[in-house]
Amino acid sequence: MQSKKVVLLNRPVGALKETDMGVFDETLAPLEPGEVLLEIEHLSVDAFIRTTFDEGAFHGTAGLGQAVMALGTARVVDSRFDGLNQGDAIFGPVGAQTHAKLPGAMLQKLDESALPARCSLGVLGLATGMTAYAGMAKVAQIKQGDTVVVSAAAGAVGSCACQVAKNLGARVIGIAGGSAKADYLLNEIGCDAAVDYKADDLAGQLSAAAPDGIDVFFDNVGGEILDIVLLQINERARVVICGAVSQYERTGDVRGPSNYLKIPEKNASMLGFTVMRFAEDYAEIQAAITEWVLAGKLKLPEQIEDGIEQFPKALTMLFSGGHMGKLMVAP
Amino acid sequence: MQSKKVVLLNRPVGALKETDMGVFDETLAPLEPGEVLLEIEHLSVDAFIRTTFDEGAFHGTAGLGQAVMALGTARVVDSRFDGLNQGDAIFGPVGAQTHAKLPGAMLQKLDESALPARCSLGVLGLATGMTAYAGMAKVAQIKQGDTVVVSAAAGAVGSCACQVAKNLGARVIGIAGGSAKADYLLNEIGCDAAVDYKADDLAGQLSAAAPDGIDVFFDNVGGEILDIVLLQINERARVVICGAVSQYERTGDVRGPSNYLKIPEKNASMLGFTVMRFAEDYAEIQAAITEWVLAGKLKLPEQIEDGIEQFPKALTMLFSGGHMGKLMVAP
Repeated sequence: MQSKKVVLLNRPVGALKETDMGVFDETLAPLEPGEVLLEIEHLSVDAFIRTTFDEGAFHGTAGLGQAVMALGTARVVDSRFDGLNQGDAIFGPVGAQTHAKLPGAMLQKLDESALPARCSLGVLGLATGMTAYAGMAKVAQIKQGDTVVVSAAAGAVGSCACQVAKNLGARVIGIAGGSAKADYLLNEIGCDAAVDYKADDLAGQLSAAAPDGIDVFFDNVGGEILDIVLLQINERARVVICGAVSQYERTGDVRGPSNYLKIPEKNASMLGFTVMRFAEDYAEIQAAITEWVLAGKLKLPEQIEDGIEQFPKALTMLFSGGHMGKLMVAP
Repeated sequence: MQSKKVVLLNRPVGALKETDMGVFDETLAPLEPGEVLLEIEHLSVDAFIRTTFDEGAFHGTAGLGQAVMALGTARVVDSRFDGLNQGDAIFGPVGAQTHAKLPGAMLQKLDESALPARCSLGVLGLATGMTAYAGMAKVAQIKQGDTVVVSAAAGAVGSCACQVAKNLGARVIGIAGGSAKADYLLNEIGCDAAVDYKADDLAGQLSAAAPDGIDVFFDNVGGEILDIVLLQINERARVVICGAVSQYERTGDVRGPSNYLKIPEKNASMLGFTVMRFAEDYAEIQAAITEWVLAGKLKLPEQIEDGIEQFPKALTMLFSGGHMGKLMVAP
């Protein structure tokens, strides 16, 4: 079986370039016992992939010349694993490639009866909808009437996070760059207000949108935006640190939040989490999300790039802010 | 009545100097109805006083030429306030002076039957023992077997915080500067280990003292120490931000913690608090502390400087690290 795979060619320094990756042909060996052959249908384009390009990364470091790590959904083409049959849909760490030969035990069989398989990368994705739900419902513990601010709000996690907070009774302000994203937040996602960090006076825009201060900040950006928000938090605020996309392409130290002393001053908390902490609650979270999706109360717009050759470009788009909603590649 | 008061002469830039303050004579006017005349017995030398020397300070800004803000204990010399009589001991915001004329309603009458009045500045002090107890018991919620690290451990809050954590069943590592303070922590305070931040390789000393990682960090220092500790926190660690004495004398921005992304990576929390948040629990906290003090399980060594003229020098000592335990001035 012929496959094409995206390979890391050199470790990027600072901003990721498409040319840091290349696409190569590969011939897959025959299946061993316990393995399945997969035709990959959708690949999730995620910020954590960038972190695997650095030495000593939290999610593991990508080897030069190996397939780039990626989560995806696939169709089983052939199986020597008892739990999976030809035609089954699966989710797993399939890698950035068109086909894969993997141990069946690494893969999760998907139920496609309620929602299509690719939703497991988006609205039901562990790193996307599930993260947004866990962050808002379990970590921030949103209450009716909270004023909630979400950074990178037009991204996949952010789009879900805004809607989860709305569904839990909050007033929601999304931060994103540019007027197209502001329109998207107001009209597609249902935010109560949108703030454009590329326009002037982010602090002023924010205080106009949240005149009574901020109860919850769900942060995926870090850097200057985190510092500006910290100056406007309320007593007992919860600052949920989900990620720090502004810092993943830095060359020096991470920029720590200079205004972190607002945390003790306001009796506030900075709460970090990874979704894996809520493994016991996955079934409950999936059920809650599915119910909202079917009721039309949660949607995640998708942007799907066609062809494995588009993967390197799609990954760089994550950091240049050139997409809205969930970015995927259909190899 | 003649009084002497410590006055702020100019706003310090960077390190505080004794000459930023001066001591002046003052003649107090006769008492108005509702006022009491106080002879101040002990003044608490606290880091927050330094913050009042800057414009826009959280605890209020000291005016040039006015008495420097300070908490203290005093004896009532004369009273035109119904709730206080000559000879009563009080606690309150008496100011850095020998005598004061204040509304009785601002003052708290002290019960001297169990512990001497000056304990309300130290082991029972809101900004000292009460803060340490609230931070460890209520915010960090210390559990038996936790590995706890305390910065500025030889200071007043730190000395109490170490003992509170020990009494709650933790293994306690104190960070302080120099071998005299290390001896103090091990022999006076009962720490399980002491780490000298002025010696080489703080990170290595810390990992040797806490080979299984850090569950709770009680931080009064910020800056580099906070960043080093963050790299050694355990899953679900609680980083309690009590203060940031390293940052109070800065001239530029506060140094934010560059390693704050360990917080999400470790499912950890950075918990800020001020003791005022636990106002409803003051009686319970005071009772718990008093019981420990009387049982010999909590002690706060005192360093008392004699004479109001010593106040400016004592305040600078807080930042140069020249004291251990609770620093007071007896005017």
